[in-house]
Amino acid sequence: MKNVKLVGATGYAGGETIRLLLSHPEVRIQSATYDGKEDAPITAFYPQLRGISDLRVASIDQSADVEDGLDAVFMAVPDNVACKLAPAYLAKGVPVIDFSGDFRFSDSNTHKQWYGFDVDESLLKKAIYGLPELFRKQIPGAKLIANPGCYPTCALLALAPALKGGFVDTETVICDAKSGISGAGRNPKSFLHFPERNENLSAYKVASHRHIPEIEVHGSAFSGKNLRLTFVPHLIPINRGMLCTIYADLLSSQTQKQMNDAYLSFYENEPFVRVLPASDMPSVNTVAGTNFCDLQVHVDEHTNRLIVVSVIDNLVKGASGQAVQNLNLILGLEETTGLMTPGQYL
Amino acid sequence: MKNVKLVGATGYAGGETIRLLLSHPEVRIQSATYDGKEDAPITAFYPQLRGISDLRVASIDQSADVEDGLDAVFMAVPDNVACKLAPAYLAKGVPVIDFSGDFRFSDSNTHKQWYGFDVDESLLKKAIYGLPELFRKQIPGAKLIANPGCYPTCALLALAPALKGGFVDTETVICDAKSGISGAGRNPKSFLHFPERNENLSAYKVASHRHIPEIEVHGSAFSGKNLRLTFVPHLIPINRGMLCTIYADLLSSQTQKQMNDAYLSFYENEPFVRVLPASDMPSVNTVAGTNFCDLQVHVDEHTNRLIVVSVIDNLVKGASGQAVQNLNLILGLEETTGLMTPGQYL
Amino acid sequence: MKNVKLVGATGYAGGETIRLLLSHPEVRIQSATYDGKEDAPITAFYPQLRGISDLRVASIDQSADVEDGLDAVFMAVPDNVACKLAPAYLAKGVPVIDFSGDFRFSDSNTHKQWYGFDVDESLLKKAIYGLPELFRKQIPGAKLIANPGCYPTCALLALAPALKGGFVDTETVICDAKSGISGAGRNPKSFLHFPERNENLSAYKVASHRHIPEIEVHGSAFSGKNLRLTFVPHLIPINRGMLCTIYADLLSSQTQKQMNDAYLSFYENEPFVRVLPASDMPSVNTVAGTNFCDLQVHVDEHTNRLIVVSVIDNLVKGASGQAVQNLNLILGLEETTGLMTPGQYL
Amino acid sequence: MKNVKLVGATGYAGGETIRLLLSHPEVRIQSATYDGKEDAPITAFYPQLRGISDLRVASIDQSADVEDGLDAVFMAVPDNVACKLAPAYLAKGVPVIDFSGDFRFSDSNTHKQWYGFDVDESLLKKAIYGLPELFRKQIPGAKLIANPGCYPTCALLALAPALKGGFVDTETVICDAKSGISGAGRNPKSFLHFPERNENLSAYKVASHRHIPEIEVHGSAFSGKNLRLTFVPHLIPINRGMLCTIYADLLSSQTQKQMNDAYLSFYENEPFVRVLPASDMPSVNTVAGTNFCDLQVHVDEHTNRLIVVSVIDNLVKGASGQAVQNLNLILGLEETTGLMTPGQYL
Repeated sequence: MKNVKLVGATGYAGGETIRLLLSHPEVRIQSATYDGKEDAPITAFYPQLRGISDLRVASIDQSADVEDGLDAVFMAVPDNVACKLAPAYLAKGVPVIDFSGDFRFSDSNTHKQWYGFDVDESLLKKAIYGLPELFRKQIPGAKLIANPGCYPTCALLALAPALKGGFVDTETVICDAKSGISGAGRNPKSFLHFPERNENLSAYKVASHRHIPEIEVHGSAFSGKNLRLTFVPHLIPINRGMLCTIYADLLSSQTQKQMNDAYLSFYENEPFVRVLPASDMPSVNTVAGTNFCDLQVHVDEHTNRLIVVSVIDNLVKGASGQAVQNLNLILGLEETTGLMTPGQYL
Repeated sequence: MKNVKLVGATGYAGGETIRLLLSHPEVRIQSATYDGKEDAPITAFYPQLRGISDLRVASIDQSADVEDGLDAVFMAVPDNVACKLAPAYLAKGVPVIDFSGDFRFSDSNTHKQWYGFDVDESLLKKAIYGLPELFRKQIPGAKLIANPGCYPTCALLALAPALKGGFVDTETVICDAKSGISGAGRNPKSFLHFPERNENLSAYKVASHRHIPEIEVHGSAFSGKNLRLTFVPHLIPINRGMLCTIYADLLSSQTQKQMNDAYLSFYENEPFVRVLPASDMPSVNTVAGTNFCDLQVHVDEHTNRLIVVSVIDNLVKGASGQAVQNLNLILGLEETTGLMTPGQYL
Repeated sequence: MKNVKLVGATGYAGGETIRLLLSHPEVRIQSATYDGKEDAPITAFYPQLRGISDLRVASIDQSADVEDGLDAVFMAVPDNVACKLAPAYLAKGVPVIDFSGDFRFSDSNTHKQWYGFDVDESLLKKAIYGLPELFRKQIPGAKLIANPGCYPTCALLALAPALKGGFVDTETVICDAKSGISGAGRNPKSFLHFPERNENLSAYKVASHRHIPEIEVHGSAFSGKNLRLTFVPHLIPINRGMLCTIYADLLSSQTQKQMNDAYLSFYENEPFVRVLPASDMPSVNTVAGTNFCDLQVHVDEHTNRLIVVSVIDNLVKGASGQAVQNLNLILGLEETTGLMTPGQYL
Repeated sequence: MKNVKLVGATGYAGGETIRLLLSHPEVRIQSATYDGKEDAPITAFYPQLRGISDLRVASIDQSADVEDGLDAVFMAVPDNVACKLAPAYLAKGVPVIDFSGDFRFSDSNTHKQWYGFDVDESLLKKAIYGLPELFRKQIPGAKLIANPGCYPTCALLALAPALKGGFVDTETVICDAKSGISGAGRNPKSFLHFPERNENLSAYKVASHRHIPEIEVHGSAFSGKNLRLTFVPHLIPINRGMLCTIYADLLSSQTQKQMNDAYLSFYENEPFVRVLPASDMPSVNTVAGTNFCDLQVHVDEHTNRLIVVSVIDNLVKGASGQAVQNLNLILGLEETTGLMTPGQYL
């Protein structure tokens, strides 16, 4: 049994990590912290765990303590926190898997430009971008994992086969993204107040979201081509789930079958990516609660454009599930361990 | 490994049963049927199972076939179907767990009055009402389980300690019930069309729902007192979850603490019933996806009335989860097997 | 054209009052204030009014100014504000219609007990409880209107004919109430954060809500009998709308037709109350956006109990619409003026 | 007072047309029909109209009768119905405003290709595409109005200034559309069943929706350039509202201010189009229930692409409201008559 610590247990990504780890047969949560002053049972924040877990969450003061016996630490904290906490864990050889944006760029200027604060460049250079389907080889030995953002996960999985195959003009890529509200976190805000989101539908941060450079940098690194992206996210009144619709100009004429086969072939051995038949209606309810990404490929012959629709659960494949997948890889466990529970259709 | 058959695999209760059994370590689904003409993969109806299950559902013609090697059969079918299919299974010694209303009354006249069709009285006499928390002793040897309705499960768990303790006037009980829409099944109907339910809230079948006699008969059988009930159900625009608010006159003055202790004591050893502190806000999101029932007890001193709020997931404790709980008891497995996975809070 | 001022324009009740008054043919909003420091256009808070209204909202500092030419003032402010602002308006003869709980009890001890702060008893004695269907005669000359709470409006309209007709035991009344989330106001809070309410359903303030004494006091005043109430409110994930299910023991045997006729007769000349046929499914989407209250009456012969289901829009008949109805009565306008626009079914 | 007939009164567009006309000061509904066999009150289908309207809907057999005294007829019927009914009205000089796709193409081959049935070419040539902001001059004398589809309305209003100004490469236009569920009509279907849509989010008819040629044909006609479009619609779990995100390559470098000014200037005198500041979050709750279209313009300098976000209420500006706007123009009424009621923010 492996032992992990969870720093930041009471937000949505923290709660979801606990949910997944409680069903993980080879990992236990040794300790957990949250941004409060007094120790408390996790059930004070996640009452559905009553009778299932007696985990306690310690005060934020313990977040920096590196207990003995840890095999890894998850950091599900706001930006500009993990970069301060990680060194102590790394110094004692405990691998860090961070959910925030602190370590997703290896270039410190890029990071500063989009996040507005500095992170030690040596940490940035050490970090591996934890999207296993694209960068699996680098993960097993990693000491510091930058767990990808939810939008980048959804977009990069949709783009990877097209980028790798050289099918599309990488300067023409558009990602129109739609996200459930849990992606905005658990802190109440005016624009996330129930009556303001319910029966509503909004675009936000049009062409200015910090996930743009994240997608560009890692898509470019993966494909060796310069990916340039227009990205517009939208808020959808559901709790979980994300759908990205990707548009890109095809460099040459391709049939629907050719492109679909390219995607099927690329993801042939991937346990968490499913290429849907063109007759399906890609929907977030097929991935909710799971680590799957469902993709559908279309060739729009009318415009010679490739369209890929991609759905994930933003809290699972877009956060906690992918973190557990990375943990499995780091610890040498079977990659799917604890992650193949069927999702709730409803 | 035990082998079960699922008759009626493609409705919501069928789908939920599959979801639960796929995580059950000691049971496998040997075969499944649905009300269609051609065999099909289950993923045609539940696409979230792609890559997880290669189960196929056979045509309805196979529903009556009793294959060899079955340890039990689940029937998640409309009313007036299981009563015709069950005898063949029973004849070959295969225990039947039925989700419909066919076997919930031992008296054939009561059944006929509320359901409008006849069921062979010898079947009715054989059936055990599968609410383990109230009737656990009768379940292990049972050949035919009438899996309780969702409203009766939620209401009877809320009432049982008060009935058993003789605290309330059993002629004064009111149950105001609120249910998510999945309780109405998977067939589309005008009043269940998305825009007719969304942003809407309705009362229906006021004081005339057939779950009234079900609650009365089994509540009376359990307590030895004559339970007489006013029951009004309501439709709430959520997928899963049910909340019952129970009101009953206290026979004598009781303090909040006395009644709360009575409930805590009654459910002390029950793995699936949790008595909440009075400070909590009883909510369906603490039980969604799980077999738990959460209860909260209030003494309204102003009116000398007991109020109990009870929440379940109508598809789990109100249907498929309770069926699996019954299966575990029948097969001699630990009662909680496969049923302790944490629920999704969101 | 009559001139009104709106103190507290940017909350949900304030915004709804503006929406209604913009369609009112005989009233204009002369001025409006909000709890901010700088004057601003109302469209900063209600952008749907762009191109329709150039109303500006003044800083809270102007809330106490009594401009010339005012025919009435609406106060859509938190508790313990209107009681401080009202005297200045009353001193200059401007009628006050207050949405808060400040003036709903004529007894200062009752007020203090439930609200925790003092209100000058002379103000309390002056206030008229503005539920026109029950207390219409007192309203035209009123100087200070306590606009009723949403739950009391919904419950008292459901109870009035039964109370007046002496049909029910007034010590046995139970009101099980279900409300959309806008009733909790526009300020974001953790338990009102979108993902915490969406797909959720909760009971709260069980038998302890301050609307209990409000219903009891005014129901008793109306009927001359001592009304004693059990009341449990629930939060439903919709924006608007409220449904109350009322249960009370019948004092004598009554048929469905007798009780229905009593209700039809009682509300025969009321423009805003509609008694539904027993075959309908009482639903909030028939009243959303309007000042109507729809009622359905049932006699539960099995338990000799009266059941009344009542639906309103909590923001209209439960707040702003009723305030405009009161305004019309005070100003001598036709009571329905500006209030008969059809609601949106969806 | 002008008299209109409504053929197809009981679907969502029919119901919404009634709602709007009941507040229209210069138009009355003389008669209405629906696809049933027996005459019925409209309140059987739209119970919110009780006490407001005593309109009756006649059997479908009366749909073809052209009563005397009609100033216009609305046809809110399925495809392939209006083309059969219209000639009788036109023969008697009654202008027809049709909500379906029957008359939206002047070319009969294009129509046949996308709709699969023939419409008499002489009717097609007679029809005017009723998008007033683009084709206002042709509407006043029109005898046959093809009321635009909801997606085309939302997309063309977003595109028009860019097309007219020659700012974008018209072969690069992408429209990613998100629609509430009422757009799919009132007939229940499996994929529109409440639990299948709630908490779900889907793409459908990817690059194959029949609104593609509608947008292309009328966008090209308006601008004189050949518009070529990629279009992907999505289903969002809300009742009303639609948001289109439009992407197109800029032909030359433009600043945010230049493009915003171009849009402001283009729509300067349009009562129903509002150009939002770039700081706003474009949202459907600002247009719900109204005939407004809100637009926001962005220049993505990173990719030299224009992005326009456009929101409408699919049932109002996308159907019934636009039909009333067309009616006003045809009848020589002020264009905004009956259409400036503020929308419900919630």
